[in-house]
Amino acid sequence: MISVSEAKQLIRINYLQPEVLIMDLYEATGMILSEGIYSPSDSPPFNQSAMDGYAYTFSERQEDLIVRGEVAAGDVVKSISEKRSAVRIFTGAEVPSEFDSVVMQEKVEFHSDKLIIKDPDQKLGMNIRLKGSQILKGSLAVKAGKSVSPGLAGFLAGIGINKIKVYKTPRVSIISTGNELIAPGEVVSPGKVYECNSYSLNAALYEVGIKPRIYKVLDDEKQIIEAVKNSLFDSDLIILSGGVSVGDYDFVSKALEACEVKCIFHKVKQKPGKPLYFGRKDKQLVFGLPGNPAALLTCYYEYILPVIKYIKGIKETETSNLKLALTEAYTKKPGLTHFLKGKMNGSEVTILKAQESYLMSSFAKADCLVQLDEEKSSFQKGDLVEVQVLK
Amino acid sequence: MISVSEAKQLIRINYLQPEVLIMDLYEATGMILSEGIYSPSDSPPFNQSAMDGYAYTFSERQEDLIVRGEVAAGDVVKSISEKRSAVRIFTGAEVPSEFDSVVMQEKVEFHSDKLIIKDPDQKLGMNIRLKGSQILKGSLAVKAGKSVSPGLAGFLAGIGINKIKVYKTPRVSIISTGNELIAPGEVVSPGKVYECNSYSLNAALYEVGIKPRIYKVLDDEKQIIEAVKNSLFDSDLIILSGGVSVGDYDFVSKALEACEVKCIFHKVKQKPGKPLYFGRKDKQLVFGLPGNPAALLTCYYEYILPVIKYIKGIKETETSNLKLALTEAYTKKPGLTHFLKGKMNGSEVTILKAQESYLMSSFAKADCLVQLDEEKSSFQKGDLVEVQVLK
Repeated sequence: MISVSEAKQLIRINYLQPEVLIMDLYEATGMILSEGIYSPSDSPPFNQSAMDGYAYTFSERQEDLIVRGEVAAGDVVKSISEKRSAVRIFTGAEVPSEFDSVVMQEKVEFHSDKLIIKDPDQKLGMNIRLKGSQILKGSLAVKAGKSVSPGLAGFLAGIGINKIKVYKTPRVSIISTGNELIAPGEVVSPGKVYECNSYSLNAALYEVGIKPRIYKVLDDEKQIIEAVKNSLFDSDLIILSGGVSVGDYDFVSKALEACEVKCIFHKVKQKPGKPLYFGRKDKQLVFGLPGNPAALLTCYYEYILPVIKYIKGIKETETSNLKLALTEAYTKKPGLTHFLKGKMNGSEVTILKAQESYLMSSFAKADCLVQLDEEKSSFQKGDLVEVQVLK
Repeated sequence: MISVSEAKQLIRINYLQPEVLIMDLYEATGMILSEGIYSPSDSPPFNQSAMDGYAYTFSERQEDLIVRGEVAAGDVVKSISEKRSAVRIFTGAEVPSEFDSVVMQEKVEFHSDKLIIKDPDQKLGMNIRLKGSQILKGSLAVKAGKSVSPGLAGFLAGIGINKIKVYKTPRVSIISTGNELIAPGEVVSPGKVYECNSYSLNAALYEVGIKPRIYKVLDDEKQIIEAVKNSLFDSDLIILSGGVSVGDYDFVSKALEACEVKCIFHKVKQKPGKPLYFGRKDKQLVFGLPGNPAALLTCYYEYILPVIKYIKGIKETETSNLKLALTEAYTKKPGLTHFLKGKMNGSEVTILKAQESYLMSSFAKADCLVQLDEEKSSFQKGDLVEVQVLK
């Protein structure tokens, strides 16, 4: 049986390489840019008025000016050659190249037809957004690796980008196995329990933008083989729930072997989730998770979510490697790494009640998993422990 | 002109009341429960074996036992009346009511056909998950107001819930106005700029689970009226971009008046976003945002996102009302509240460069908005300022 760190290392060396996809910017919120983007245009694309007012030549600011026409936002600008001219101009409109300043409409007067500028604070270039002052054509707008936020989406659209290259979201299948399972909403019948693992995994995958395919099968080698074959047809990651121990009704390993999935490890020195299976077939990864609901979701967060983040190009954040102080002492047997449902509060973490692997009540309240080292057995109040935020 | 706090107060008293929807649990990740859920079943629904092993009667632990049949997970259990019996049992299977303990398969021996228990640590009730030990039928499983997390989804499914009552997500329309706008991806033409406001708003709305309808219209009263009428037909919130000042090409107020939208306020003592418009028609709210991209997105985060969170039942988090220390001094004119794009770092916040309302480059990098009070003009390094996290 291997340790948690060995298991994580074996998964890491089998990480699937991220793939790149061209996406419409409208659809790409939260996706990660696979390459830097250079601006295809100057932004603004021309000298642009920042006000409703009058464009004029600063050196003529003391003169009486004649207003020759108007430029609204979106208008094609015309050349004005006469000296002592001005144009009526509106916010967002192109400033004719003959003019270098704009005065607000509130700061002018008209004497008969002549425009008089009444702004002692007026400066050369005032109220003009210079061409390229946000970004110049050809310069780097954003580096690779950034997530598409609302601010970034607006910035990219504004420089003319509507398609971007991002890392692809992996396709995932869930195969939930177990003769005892009935769907929630159905009437309970003797010996049966409600299937919940497809629900917790579905929600966890939703949080990283994945809508999985879901198969529900009996503890039957043929049914499992069929579901695995279907999943191998269209998924990058396959997650099986249940049937992964070595009992008489545990058909998952055999089914995976029959599907030519190569076992990379099976069983990890951890609690919960000891029977964890990890295998690979070409460019597809297969995780066999124990059917106990809390063990399953723990294994998802510890082993599968990091793979998904890697494929999607999501970088480690400051909450990756978080260490918090225990609010109470805790003891465990040495020999297994423990993962415990916890609740954070500032720089402290509390280990919740109801840690048994069949109980989801604590997972429903938890916001993190506390990792307690394999070797250690005794933890004091205030001891710093590794914490994985459930996100 | 009203202050920021008056504007926010006027919006608050016009908040739409949250509505309730019944959703399939698979579709409801991140939604907020509108009422508490009581467990429709005992969980586990019966005494369940936690191991592959043998179920027996603890008082007979020293006797030779005869194995009478087997119970696998999902099997309907049969009654066994003979004394000194045991059954082969598997993880998840129902323990026959005659038995009170389960011994692991690794801890037994067979002498001829007789089962001998070889576990000195064996205790009464061992390896049995008692009926109702996670939750009893009829007791409160989860309180109203909780968000559907992966852990909660699994917990609810496991007690038999597949439909839940949650607060409805509001329907939103975006109407982007402006003669100067062309779609990103198109070739630049004289006087035109790329439309980006529908992109930033679309991404911001995506982050709260909303796919808006998007209309793009010219600075033309008829076109705006038509788009507003269409939006009033199917939206709870309508967001207009641009045309909200009082210039010759600003038709938004007139169009809204023509659509019988009642203006609640127009213009706020703030920078950016001074021309902000807020109105209401029956149960629909209308926001007219300035067309300058950074002003628009700032107004969204400050005024519209709180409305959406309220309607969706999302509670204030610990990051609402955050105060951080400025990393550098800052001065502004008094008279307007300023909202500035910032970047957080622990307990500090840095005000980014490029704060002008037409620049999105700083928004693309920002993770918060810093609010600087209307009255104050001078801020020192280390001064605590209100910060709104962009999420």
